Amino acid sequence: MRHHRTDAAPGSTSTLRTANQQRVLDVLRSGSAPGPTADLTGGDFTQAELARVTGLAPATVSNIVRELVASGLVETEAGSGRRGSAIRLARAAGIVGGVDFGHSHVAVAIGDLTGRLLAEERQPLEQGHAHIEALRLASSMLDAMTSKFDPAGPIRHIGLGLPAPVTNDVVRSSAIFPGWDGVNTRAAAEEHFGIPVHVENDANLGALAEHRQGVARGHDSSVFVKISSGVGAGIIIHNELFHGSGGTAGEIGHLTLDDAGPLCRCGSRGCLEAYASTGTVLAMMAGQLPDATLDDLLDAARTGNVSAQRALEDAGLHLGKGIASVVNLINPSVVVIGGDMARAGDLLLESARIGLRRHALDSVALTPILASELGERASLVGAVLLAAERTVLVVEHA
Amino acid sequence: MRHHRTDAAPGSTSTLRTANQQRVLDVLRSGSAPGPTADLTGGDFTQAELARVTGLAPATVSNIVRELVASGLVETEAGSGRRGSAIRLARAAGIVGGVDFGHSHVAVAIGDLTGRLLAEERQPLEQGHAHIEALRLASSMLDAMTSKFDPAGPIRHIGLGLPAPVTNDVVRSSAIFPGWDGVNTRAAAEEHFGIPVHVENDANLGALAEHRQGVARGHDSSVFVKISSGVGAGIIIHNELFHGSGGTAGEIGHLTLDDAGPLCRCGSRGCLEAYASTGTVLAMMAGQLPDATLDDLLDAARTGNVSAQRALEDAGLHLGKGIASVVNLINPSVVVIGGDMARAGDLLLESARIGLRRHALDSVALTPILASELGERASLVGAVLLAAERTVLVVEHA
Repeated sequence: MRHHRTDAAPGSTSTLRTANQQRVLDVLRSGSAPGPTADLTGGDFTQAELARVTGLAPATVSNIVRELVASGLVETEAGSGRRGSAIRLARAAGIVGGVDFGHSHVAVAIGDLTGRLLAEERQPLEQGHAHIEALRLASSMLDAMTSKFDPAGPIRHIGLGLPAPVTNDVVRSSAIFPGWDGVNTRAAAEEHFGIPVHVENDANLGALAEHRQGVARGHDSSVFVKISSGVGAGIIIHNELFHGSGGTAGEIGHLTLDDAGPLCRCGSRGCLEAYASTGTVLAMMAGQLPDATLDDLLDAARTGNVSAQRALEDAGLHLGKGIASVVNLINPSVVVIGGDMARAGDLLLESARIGLRRHALDSVALTPILASELGERASLVGAVLLAAERTVLVVEHA
Repeated sequence: MRHHRTDAAPGSTSTLRTANQQRVLDVLRSGSAPGPTADLTGGDFTQAELARVTGLAPATVSNIVRELVASGLVETEAGSGRRGSAIRLARAAGIVGGVDFGHSHVAVAIGDLTGRLLAEERQPLEQGHAHIEALRLASSMLDAMTSKFDPAGPIRHIGLGLPAPVTNDVVRSSAIFPGWDGVNTRAAAEEHFGIPVHVENDANLGALAEHRQGVARGHDSSVFVKISSGVGAGIIIHNELFHGSGGTAGEIGHLTLDDAGPLCRCGSRGCLEAYASTGTVLAMMAGQLPDATLDDLLDAARTGNVSAQRALEDAGLHLGKGIASVVNLINPSVVVIGGDMARAGDLLLESARIGLRRHALDSVALTPILASELGERASLVGAVLLAAERTVLVVEHA
């Protein structure tokens, strides 16, 4: 949700002007029009495009662009040929940071207010790390990045992702993410970074990223399933992240698929995560491919190793069964598969589609299951988007 | 969603006046204040209560009430003792109809615009009936009801519930509700009734009813599970019904609990419905209690028949497992159990709570599971509420 500050009385001319400015800024921040985007490249718009997308009169757009340029939030660049000047958010409008913590990695990025990443870096973290240690590393990575990146200006907000259910900024499951259990992550991170931090579950961030910039673009409702060492989902409803009453919606990884199945780290048995996570698939193949990485296993499957193919197929069938619960209950118009396992592509997704057809009601059995466009970067992109969308742009009148 | 027609320009005095009138009408239609309702009885309000609930000045409320009384939409009744005059929607503001079709029954009702039922009737229907037959019966029941009910005025809108997934007014599953498959129910019903008809899944209507008038009142998000001969759910998110992209969200009855479980009428195996429907529980007990009704079985369980208790307990454990998927994915703040099986009370719900704790993530394992307040009438009440909420009140200026 975009936040607009309008202190003037409702219905006044000054409110209308502010609202129209924010409309133009929102379009520039979204990076492109909702709907067909063929004639819009990157985050650049012509005045004619802005008028079409906002529905404002060309003369109004022209005035607003002049005001926004004067305030330093927007910059223009002379166009070539028939195309008018390119209009975009100015770098000086601000930059934001994104941090994505995993069980065994941290990734940080800085981006502009359209959610475009300007620089990013990923480093390993020890499994079961303490949260303080992880925050310290992220903070130093971000400091190094901003000092190298010139002229960056100060970071305005940070979006931060965690691979666990998060309620009111606190990790709500000791079993899922032990080093962070009970920690008020926002408070701890704001102490380290010294600027406002917005905390989200990492699958939620992936859902946001795929909805704004990836394959779920244009879908009013979508579900993003992140499959790496853990399995979780983020849900978009009416174009916004859906959190549920306690903030923990989307925990697909711990749907029980079989009461008598393998024990799961959450304390239950036969959870989807216990069938479809990268660790599970690698463990199935440990006899044939000891010490293999996921990419080794994917290579083997692609070059004809039928056991590797079967391990991925079984993971996919279970995944499809879990997705059947999602589409029966939530009925999204698309399901996106992300995380490390998305690299398996159709080796995983074909059987996921079969599992879905087998277990979903006929009315929703053909819901598309697509591979993430953003891959392992989805949560990091989502963290930057979250920070960008939470940054309020105030127009200083020149 | 309430629909307000405001044709005047935004920000004009006339728009403000209309908006304030609608605010007062909305409160009167809702039947009581959102939040604590101790001092509000039935659909009656005092002027002081209206001022408090709407946030409008007492003098403004007084003017609006005078206008609304003059237009015939609102009536007042002199109060007794310290309490001021009672203000309520006038009967002349309009009445609406509700129709609830089941596999083997039809129920119809008329109600006022607060969603209060004024008269209701239920009749049996043959399983597998043709939709034309069912509509004909409902239509004649409704005609008889309005002719007896005097002075009723014409019915403005009808809400209509069906026990099947409904997309754009069409039943989307031949397996679930054969006599209605592919029928545009709205078009067919409007032909029979001659007034606007709004079609909904029956569990959705139950969810609406429990949210507006039952145990889910005051919860921003809730899930209503209807367990009768079929099992379905309705989902309330941000105080409104959630439909999903194709209109079929909430199909909890066809979550697969066990791949190798009993065949389900939907064509899958081991669905929740195949464990927890009334038919399943009665079939389990057919050896000991041949030809028993659900109430016979419930009596037996209450008077110490341990097999009947066990049959209900097993249904409850499976129900809890299905609910675990719901709370993991959607994280509502309450789950309400309705339909015929809700009459089992704690004989079913205690084991449902155990099943939930066993299969849900710890952060949501204690989500309350409550029995419906409205019982088998929930969908019918929801049908009347749907019709009432879709009826637009236009204030004719006297």
